[in-house]
Amino acid sequence: MTSHGQYGADVMPVTFRASGQGEWVIERITAVRGSALAPAPRLSVIEGRLLPTEVGDVWSLRGVTSHARYVERPEKTRLDAISPPLGRRLATHAALIPIRKSAAWWALAQDERRAVFETRSRHIAASLPYLPRVARRLHHARELGEPFDFLTWFELAPEHTSAFDDLVATLRASEEWSFVEAEVDVRLVRG
Amino acid sequence: MTSHGQYGADVMPVTFRASGQGEWVIERITAVRGSALAPAPRLSVIEGRLLPTEVGDVWSLRGVTSHARYVERPEKTRLDAISPPLGRRLATHAALIPIRKSAAWWALAQDERRAVFETRSRHIAASLPYLPRVARRLHHARELGEPFDFLTWFELAPEHTSAFDDLVATLRASEEWSFVEAEVDVRLVRG
Repeated sequence: MTSHGQYGADVMPVTFRASGQGEWVIERITAVRGSALAPAPRLSVIEGRLLPTEVGDVWSLRGVTSHARYVERPEKTRLDAISPPLGRRLATHAALIPIRKSAAWWALAQDERRAVFETRSRHIAASLPYLPRVARRLHHARELGEPFDFLTWFELAPEHTSAFDDLVATLRASEEWSFVEAEVDVRLVRG
Repeated sequence: MTSHGQYGADVMPVTFRASGQGEWVIERITAVRGSALAPAPRLSVIEGRLLPTEVGDVWSLRGVTSHARYVERPEKTRLDAISPPLGRRLATHAALIPIRKSAAWWALAQDERRAVFETRSRHIAASLPYLPRVARRLHHARELGEPFDFLTWFELAPEHTSAFDDLVATLRASEEWSFVEAEVDVRLVRG
């Protein structure tokens, strides 16, 4: 990942723009919790820039990649080793899952958030078995004043869709998700 | 703290603007590591907005308050209990200390950063004895593409300046500071 303007080497701004154009066709948008995002035909993923919503956009969301907040060293080593890159030719399907967590979550101390996230919800441990099949990039949006705290982008081959659905269902049933107050699930295919 | 636009309840954007006007007189600017900020007569602290550098500004820096990243529950309870608010009448002196940490810091896992920050550098433990005297607010700037990762604002009464200098010297001598690649120390008095 290259540096963008004054951004740190691991910080990349990304704009997700839903409109009539874009490299991804939006198949469906589901409101998991809270309001849905409006239906739109296509999505562009614009790396390196935070762009405002423009005339012709149905909606747009912005986030920045950044350092991991909860993973510990053995987990990070394992994750780095098995996480596939974005842009694989076989990964013709994608999901964009914007999430907002509650004020109660953000008021927790770091050790309390880690205990919910991993010790009790097994967010990393549950995800690891899926990772060779699912590429993933997390974007932070909370400090940008965006409507969601996180935008996670996933890319996978079509035959792994049902495994991915299992992972998402497992996480949604976890204690961590009791702190999720808004979640939308956008599914896409390469256009 | 009230909510600002779409920002979460604990997220407040703040602009620090150095120019010919403002409620704080800049007494001196010291480059602790890396380049200094240009000399300017006064500083405004503008809460609730991220403003671009405008004509007439010598420089401006932007950050957002956010949740604590390293404190554990017993530390948070103690910190919340003894941290004084900003704006005390007796606190006529202030410091603005912008810091940027190295890529090596941001590449660490969470447990490694915590070990450097507190287990070995005693950042929280060393700061606690000073806290009833020094009011402090941390602003995150890394995700905003700013030249610094953090902007910390301190307010204190003039008789506590030398104690504050001791605290700052203790932190600068810690292992954590080996990851600091840029630091400026701006000292101010209420105008």
